[in-house]
Amino acid sequence: MTNRSVFIVSDGTGITAGILGHSLLSQFPDATSEPITLPFIDSDDKAKDAIRQINDAAEKDGATPIVFSTFVENEFTDQIRESHALVLDLFGSFLDLLSTELAMEPSHKVGYGHGVVDADLYTSRIRAVHYSMDCDDGLNTNDYRRADVILVGVSRIGKTPVSMYLAMHSGLFCANYPLTGDELQNEHFPVVLQSHTSQIIGLTIDPVRLHDIRQERRPGSFYADLKQCRFEVESAEGLFRRFGIPFFSTTGVSIEEIATAILQRTGIRRNLLA
Amino acid sequence: MTNRSVFIVSDGTGITAGILGHSLLSQFPDATSEPITLPFIDSDDKAKDAIRQINDAAEKDGATPIVFSTFVENEFTDQIRESHALVLDLFGSFLDLLSTELAMEPSHKVGYGHGVVDADLYTSRIRAVHYSMDCDDGLNTNDYRRADVILVGVSRIGKTPVSMYLAMHSGLFCANYPLTGDELQNEHFPVVLQSHTSQIIGLTIDPVRLHDIRQERRPGSFYADLKQCRFEVESAEGLFRRFGIPFFSTTGVSIEEIATAILQRTGIRRNLLA
Repeated sequence: MTNRSVFIVSDGTGITAGILGHSLLSQFPDATSEPITLPFIDSDDKAKDAIRQINDAAEKDGATPIVFSTFVENEFTDQIRESHALVLDLFGSFLDLLSTELAMEPSHKVGYGHGVVDADLYTSRIRAVHYSMDCDDGLNTNDYRRADVILVGVSRIGKTPVSMYLAMHSGLFCANYPLTGDELQNEHFPVVLQSHTSQIIGLTIDPVRLHDIRQERRPGSFYADLKQCRFEVESAEGLFRRFGIPFFSTTGVSIEEIATAILQRTGIRRNLLA
Repeated sequence: MTNRSVFIVSDGTGITAGILGHSLLSQFPDATSEPITLPFIDSDDKAKDAIRQINDAAEKDGATPIVFSTFVENEFTDQIRESHALVLDLFGSFLDLLSTELAMEPSHKVGYGHGVVDADLYTSRIRAVHYSMDCDDGLNTNDYRRADVILVGVSRIGKTPVSMYLAMHSGLFCANYPLTGDELQNEHFPVVLQSHTSQIIGLTIDPVRLHDIRQERRPGSFYADLKQCRFEVESAEGLFRRFGIPFFSTTGVSIEEIATAILQRTGIRRNLLA
């Protein structure tokens, strides 16, 4: 059986349509092919070309493709609806409902969703990304006073991706610091962290999962040894508990889920920049 | 006039609902307050608490709040619909349409949208983030053979945020290399780039905008001088043209828009990991 073709079509980046399409299709595992994104469809010619691609897929598959679309301009939505596809337009119906409720007309400006709406927000987001890179993996601890959050945990637990996500999407100044085996022999946080405990969020992990990750990186090493992994994880959790540091497990949890839990815990408002 | 309150409510992270809400509300500038996100609403008690917050806002504002929701379980959607709000549920209607078209029942598993669905994809995404950090700003050029893309451009043009976005969201191994004033005196790419021109994507910028950015960083410096900014931008564009390197302007364009344009130009498939 051929999987259904899926298209993401937009006059902007298609990111909004792509994300909602992904969420919806994850409820129907293995039913569809990898989506094909057709961004920046903002002219009649481009719309015609998109329709041609969609109709070709319909013919080739012998089945109706699924199209997730976001068009600020109704005229393109109307054109795409003429393709041989199930077109789920994410703006149309909701924009009408909002327009009625707010008693306002939509601005119909393209690209505002992911565009540079607010130069200050944009700049602060880029600053956050640079800060988080500069303060990755225990670097520049002398700049910790500017941190919104300092992620602390043992090596290979996922600190860096979560830091970058929080910087990129929420504009957080997010440092991260690795607790090493040596430091964990003590029953205190490393000196550089001691005056910043209120900014710390701990990360933990299932020791067996940590062992697997480290084995892949340095097979057979002391660092990857399950006993060492257990010692590090237990010591780190002990520290978090002793100093009242909130902590989250990264085992089987996505970057987005941990980032959301951290925002919720700290009460730092999400800027919704992306 | 009080702005309308907006809530993002979900049994998952709320990221999908947040992004679509942001896109839709950007069509009605200044009509609403900053959204309040209520993630992980996966029990009756949490649903009741969410409803209480929504109804409190309705009373305080003297106006109907707007709720964007994504619930995999219909029972919570039904509960939230009883609040005194305009509830725009992004899953409900679309899931039914998809279910009919695919002749399948939705799995009703929570969190699959942003969950760890595929461990391999998850690992490759984390690898991409680490690669892109290790190869930021001209570091580790000896590892360029593994790069999907090498972003090249003058200092402060936005290479780092775009690299991190492509790594985080599309799993791209994305290096970036700064062209310095000295290197731009030559009419060739720096030696370390010469065997990698097929992987290079250029970034450019309006020299006046570059001048503004650099002025903020190092006021009055040679580096920030408008004449120097013009020289660097013109020389870099000359190099791109001479060697047939595709390039994009970052002036007034969001990180998402540049990233999307790069994916489209290179034909590298977006993994839709977020």
